[in-house]
Amino acid sequence: MNKQLEPFYPPPRLLLGPGPSSVHPRVLQAMAMPLLGHLDGAFLKVMDDVMQALRDVFKTSNKLTFPVSATGSAGMEAAFCNILEPGDVVVIAVNGFFGNRMVDIGNRCGAEVHAVEYEWGKAIGPDLSRLEDEMKKHKKVKALAIVHGETSTGVLNSLQPVAELAHAYDAVVIADAVTSLGGVDVALDEWDVDVAHSGTQKCLGGPPGLAPVTLGPRAEQVLKERTRPVQSFYLNLSDLETYWDERRAYHHTAPISMVYALREALRMVQEEGLEARFARHAINAEAFRAGAEALGMKLLADPDCRLDPLTTVLTPEGVDVNRVRGILLEEYGIEIGGGLGPLAGKILRIGLMGDGSRAANVLALLSALERILPREGFEVAKGAGVAAAQKVYAEED
Amino acid sequence: MNKQLEPFYPPPRLLLGPGPSSVHPRVLQAMAMPLLGHLDGAFLKVMDDVMQALRDVFKTSNKLTFPVSATGSAGMEAAFCNILEPGDVVVIAVNGFFGNRMVDIGNRCGAEVHAVEYEWGKAIGPDLSRLEDEMKKHKKVKALAIVHGETSTGVLNSLQPVAELAHAYDAVVIADAVTSLGGVDVALDEWDVDVAHSGTQKCLGGPPGLAPVTLGPRAEQVLKERTRPVQSFYLNLSDLETYWDERRAYHHTAPISMVYALREALRMVQEEGLEARFARHAINAEAFRAGAEALGMKLLADPDCRLDPLTTVLTPEGVDVNRVRGILLEEYGIEIGGGLGPLAGKILRIGLMGDGSRAANVLALLSALERILPREGFEVAKGAGVAAAQKVYAEED
Repeated sequence: MNKQLEPFYPPPRLLLGPGPSSVHPRVLQAMAMPLLGHLDGAFLKVMDDVMQALRDVFKTSNKLTFPVSATGSAGMEAAFCNILEPGDVVVIAVNGFFGNRMVDIGNRCGAEVHAVEYEWGKAIGPDLSRLEDEMKKHKKVKALAIVHGETSTGVLNSLQPVAELAHAYDAVVIADAVTSLGGVDVALDEWDVDVAHSGTQKCLGGPPGLAPVTLGPRAEQVLKERTRPVQSFYLNLSDLETYWDERRAYHHTAPISMVYALREALRMVQEEGLEARFARHAINAEAFRAGAEALGMKLLADPDCRLDPLTTVLTPEGVDVNRVRGILLEEYGIEIGGGLGPLAGKILRIGLMGDGSRAANVLALLSALERILPREGFEVAKGAGVAAAQKVYAEED
Repeated sequence: MNKQLEPFYPPPRLLLGPGPSSVHPRVLQAMAMPLLGHLDGAFLKVMDDVMQALRDVFKTSNKLTFPVSATGSAGMEAAFCNILEPGDVVVIAVNGFFGNRMVDIGNRCGAEVHAVEYEWGKAIGPDLSRLEDEMKKHKKVKALAIVHGETSTGVLNSLQPVAELAHAYDAVVIADAVTSLGGVDVALDEWDVDVAHSGTQKCLGGPPGLAPVTLGPRAEQVLKERTRPVQSFYLNLSDLETYWDERRAYHHTAPISMVYALREALRMVQEEGLEARFARHAINAEAFRAGAEALGMKLLADPDCRLDPLTTVLTPEGVDVNRVRGILLEEYGIEIGGGLGPLAGKILRIGLMGDGSRAANVLALLSALERILPREGFEVAKGAGVAAAQKVYAEED
């Protein structure tokens, strides 16, 4: 035996990075309630509540709508490995790190993956012709996949035109809604999106641990027509559905506490109302962006496709991203993110998501940056950041 | 939007089924602490603590020892899909439902699966010749898999002789330690077991949500020599290791709260001491078994291979298992389990695991059964169950 562990108390943190976001104490307390068995009638009612509330945030009537028992990336894997069989063709629109993750997962499924690359920081929407060219090349495309909110670049891609394109070629569309769900509009039925997956730890305001997924009629048909078993037992949606629906068949032990937490987070979404929640995410993003620009920083994402829950700021000339992040964390207890892949060192990622999307947080971060950046050699106009943000809030009043 | 959800408060429950087990309030409170980012230095220290404490309970020095971010069944899947490639031969010793789950998962990995079936309720140990016959048949067996504690039958299989057999044929041994780890001895290095996986929600005393896995040198070598990518992104242990070890590479957002909970549960294991914990699980199991037999019930598992954390009782003549379970739940708030697969309706499964393994729980359950069984048409000797259990405890004093 090694030495006895001491009690652990986390240092105070304001989580304004790409996720997890700070979680409201109500949700933390719900998570700490005593466990129920995973087939206890009282827990089955909790599951029903979660499914129904998830349908509301996805704006869908899809029957197959529930969280898989793992974090966001497992939602992506569940979507891919249930829809795709070895040899199936999947076309993936890539304009960021998580588009590339789709390519990786598609390959691991044994699919024939065709990535159509777009510039990072720009939306896929305006130029669907290259995506259509790729769709045309193949006798049968099983799925067209796209990330709704690219957490690596802060870009929001439009789903509806991509869904139309997919359906024109008889493919299902798979959308990653990890950083959009609960923070910006995700209207699956209106947009006719067949498969979407998300995570609890961003705009839904829960802790990481579950990945909501939803499949519409075309996708359910794909599951029915599969010729081989899904390669994952754990993420096999047809079997999982027999636990989540009225059959209540044992599949695996659900993470009870996480489902409690998600239920409470969704209850808070209901109380606020979806449209009010989107407006809150929008104004705080707008205020932060205005403040960052007033401090002399530049934004990565094009103005017409910015993702409100996550803003990407180009690293100011001569500044070391990791030093800035370190000082923010140590002196202010504020976490923000750096860049992923080719953007490492080149950007800062600021998440204003879920309970973290608050004016007070925007102002605190801008004030801290105003103090830190000059120490790191980047001069800023004193007070300009906070003033610009306050102006945005004032205009809203 | 559907109607606003009400607050949820779980009804009081004593979880004495096959899992999850009741969780100590200390662990629930640890889980409810504010989140940290998954790459925050303070959280990385928590991860290190968890890895080291897990090595202690697995009795191993394996470097690759950490929880995967999902519940117990995902641990089994992680073990299989990392060790096996399509076409590999795996031999699986099956004497229960979870042995069959290994067969299912092995098939989903594209492996050539050979199951050697043993009688449910008896151990695999005494008759390894049939297992050896199967090993001999193949040019190269990649892995030999076995369940240590069969949750479906309450049987404990000996791992050491199976590991020896595997190594004699140059195969790695994979052991399911879901219902054994933390409740009975799991001495991986001494027994030379290459791969083991478990869950947090049984004898470790945590909530469901993580699956500890550990891989020794032979298994690490297998990972290095793979010719194809692991079919799962989420469960790819070589990549996960780059997050858990000193490289700290981003892979996926870890379920922070679950890792807090596991750390506190492991801290409680340390405080009690492993051998004292095994002794506690043993005496409570012995007391319950004595009480159940004194009430006239018969046990499924052979006396020489009983799994202390989980006892299987044959359904008394004429009694409806589901009615008994329903009355226990509704009138006493006690959850116990029924049988799985061919044992459905034929047995009751009583888990005395983790924080749930207490004399008070044993006595409460025996008293409740003594009241319920006669109502269901099975006469019992009044007071005999509790008296027999108390005798076991008295002998220990």
